[in-house]
Amino acid sequence: MDLLQGFTENIAKERLFAAGDRLLLAVSGGLDSVALTELCHRCGFDFLIVHCNFQLRGAESMRDEEFVKQMGTRYGREVVAGRFDTAEYAAMNKVSIQVAARELRYRWFEQFIKAGRARWIVTAHHLDDNIETMLMNFFKGTGIAGLRGMVPRQGNIVRPLLFAKKDELRAFAVEAGLQWVEDSSNESDKYTRNFFRHQLIPLVEQAYPGALARLSDNLDRMREAEALYRQSVEGWKKKLVEYRGNEVHIPVEKLRKAEPLATIVFEVIEPFGFTPQQVEGVVGLLDSASGRYIRSRTHRILKNRNFLIITPLLESEAAHILIEEGREAVDYPEGVLQLQRVPAANAGVLDQGPGVALLDAGLITFPLLLRRWRPGDYFYPLGLRKKKKVARFLIDNKVSLAAKEKVWVLEMDKKIIWIVGMRIDDRWKLGPRTQTVLRLTAMRQ
Amino acid sequence: MDLLQGFTENIAKERLFAAGDRLLLAVSGGLDSVALTELCHRCGFDFLIVHCNFQLRGAESMRDEEFVKQMGTRYGREVVAGRFDTAEYAAMNKVSIQVAARELRYRWFEQFIKAGRARWIVTAHHLDDNIETMLMNFFKGTGIAGLRGMVPRQGNIVRPLLFAKKDELRAFAVEAGLQWVEDSSNESDKYTRNFFRHQLIPLVEQAYPGALARLSDNLDRMREAEALYRQSVEGWKKKLVEYRGNEVHIPVEKLRKAEPLATIVFEVIEPFGFTPQQVEGVVGLLDSASGRYIRSRTHRILKNRNFLIITPLLESEAAHILIEEGREAVDYPEGVLQLQRVPAANAGVLDQGPGVALLDAGLITFPLLLRRWRPGDYFYPLGLRKKKKVARFLIDNKVSLAAKEKVWVLEMDKKIIWIVGMRIDDRWKLGPRTQTVLRLTAMRQ
Repeated sequence: MDLLQGFTENIAKERLFAAGDRLLLAVSGGLDSVALTELCHRCGFDFLIVHCNFQLRGAESMRDEEFVKQMGTRYGREVVAGRFDTAEYAAMNKVSIQVAARELRYRWFEQFIKAGRARWIVTAHHLDDNIETMLMNFFKGTGIAGLRGMVPRQGNIVRPLLFAKKDELRAFAVEAGLQWVEDSSNESDKYTRNFFRHQLIPLVEQAYPGALARLSDNLDRMREAEALYRQSVEGWKKKLVEYRGNEVHIPVEKLRKAEPLATIVFEVIEPFGFTPQQVEGVVGLLDSASGRYIRSRTHRILKNRNFLIITPLLESEAAHILIEEGREAVDYPEGVLQLQRVPAANAGVLDQGPGVALLDAGLITFPLLLRRWRPGDYFYPLGLRKKKKVARFLIDNKVSLAAKEKVWVLEMDKKIIWIVGMRIDDRWKLGPRTQTVLRLTAMRQ
Repeated sequence: MDLLQGFTENIAKERLFAAGDRLLLAVSGGLDSVALTELCHRCGFDFLIVHCNFQLRGAESMRDEEFVKQMGTRYGREVVAGRFDTAEYAAMNKVSIQVAARELRYRWFEQFIKAGRARWIVTAHHLDDNIETMLMNFFKGTGIAGLRGMVPRQGNIVRPLLFAKKDELRAFAVEAGLQWVEDSSNESDKYTRNFFRHQLIPLVEQAYPGALARLSDNLDRMREAEALYRQSVEGWKKKLVEYRGNEVHIPVEKLRKAEPLATIVFEVIEPFGFTPQQVEGVVGLLDSASGRYIRSRTHRILKNRNFLIITPLLESEAAHILIEEGREAVDYPEGVLQLQRVPAANAGVLDQGPGVALLDAGLITFPLLLRRWRPGDYFYPLGLRKKKKVARFLIDNKVSLAAKEKVWVLEMDKKIIWIVGMRIDDRWKLGPRTQTVLRLTAMRQ
């Protein structure tokens, strides 16, 4: 089949974009993107060209940039070239050069979309790329999503050449008399791809003639299998996940019955930055005491009675955390606050470390409010009969400036009942008539 | 970890069988099954040993049989050895030696289960086997089920060693001072496995150290992913598939909206012997006329108005097929019968080939009955005023003995209205007052 015809048919079949949409072609100047540009030109699509100069290959990088600019002149299309300090970005963000290049590229492309300069980002990834991606994922270890490879459309990014083999692109480019540049670099992604292209696939083709075609069929099958997998996952999420404000609540008993548990837990926590390696720990929370938690880079998942609660790691100065009756654990920026009710008769044996407060539960009414201290705050420190400014209290206790910023107070009815981890208010201390003790424990992280 | 401990833990974790269950150990005499036997012996399980002698390796086959019998003596357990004419079975059934051996083996094992001589068939498949199976499936082309490899339990078959590496089995066998036989054969399954074991996996391990461990993790992940996939598939089937007697009805409009269509169609038709290659054809039926069909080895899927109907290919002599009002296509052993209603004014242009009958629809009441002719049958052949025995009619028309067996009649209210494909009954022919024609077409396959 004619490549141009395959190209237009694939765009229609996958409903990638409409004929009049403005496209942003990502063009390196290599064979794939040069063929893509020619195809878009022949289709009469409305496009501009962007070129990323990652400045990793000295003069060659400049040659490529110049080459793509000339392409723009030839086609009468705008070319925008961006230069990036990729090595520095990689060092600063502690990522590989590959990841750095990808992040820089797509972040830059997104700006064009946001500015309304194009509707779709178009890349030249083809079938060979996709099979290599799948094989890489397969041998590095992956779930079902890794085996369906890249999809034709993902957000603003469209990949209209995923149907085409590299050989077909080359034949088209040669027949059309196109020129392109060769990338002499040996970066690790290319190295890995070459391993599959030149070693693994030929070896497999020898043992199983036609394996490449069947791997291509696998991609299609896995794409559909993943769609069915997603339907189940979404069904489970609907059953298991309750959104409450900025918290996500997951009922422990329902989750315990979910089957297959590990994968469902993974799918529930993954959007909050948790990794596959943390799944086992989260499953462990099901049977742990209130107050145990596991953190991702952005969130914390906390066991609280019959729920696992996912909360964003708080950074806001103004954070006010309301503690409802019955809550046994609360997440706050400095750690976790545990709440327990104990009969007064047992209070003697309670651990009374610095992070612990023992209050007369009979005098406490919920909700309580957990917040940072403020300059105007005052309270009646345990042992004193008169009120004292919290600011003064902190100075008297020689709290450093840095530590002061981490001081939180627990408030009831606009009265402070505890400077968290330091001193309770005298009015709520245990007395001879205390029947139940509210035991608060501040667990710092 | 100790292999014996891993073995018992795995049996518990996967809930494979209870300690007191009687087991049927499939023992070839090779390393894997020898280690399995020793493990079961140490656990004190109740088992008997079965050995398949496929008689493919001459003296070596006899040596192995003898070896396994001696194992039985050593362990004080019953050994049953079965001898199979595998080559003959393969030739007769037109299958490979591998497939023949597998079919013979499992069919024989099943007889022990049915006879109550054991509860579970236990095989010695291990982790390396399973990774090789997955790789084989992957490169031969597969869906999600092929990528999760063998499962620890499937029907009566349990595989308690899937967690263990071949190396671990060997170390255990050596340490326990066990003896085993080596299989000198070079059958194609073994050849393929050797390709993965000695060529592909080492190559990948070089490029991605630790790949084998990650492939093992893939198996676990895929097993869970497949479970989620199955949940969706079952949900779709419940929505789409209606069982009516021995027919399966699938509403066309509902199926058309199913997403992802191809895979859902595959999962719906696969249990009836259809292949992945037939999916596209079945999707095509959605838009085809009533009467179009596709056959598997055992079933036919037929487009009838707003339904796809799956029916077993009929073989019974006594088949009686009831045709309800509104049916436009009916499946019967000799082909498909199409039914159409046409205004009499248009009847002149209708194709009137030998397979077509034109009847006065006003005289017909449903249901009709389609069945094979019987010796006592008679009817009023078109053009004759008196009745005639069908047997006589067939003789007069020089229908051969073989062809006679394929003659069907269409009956209404115990009266024959059509000798299918030959002659209608005079009483239901078109007349001057006919308003609507019932046009019947017998399409032979």
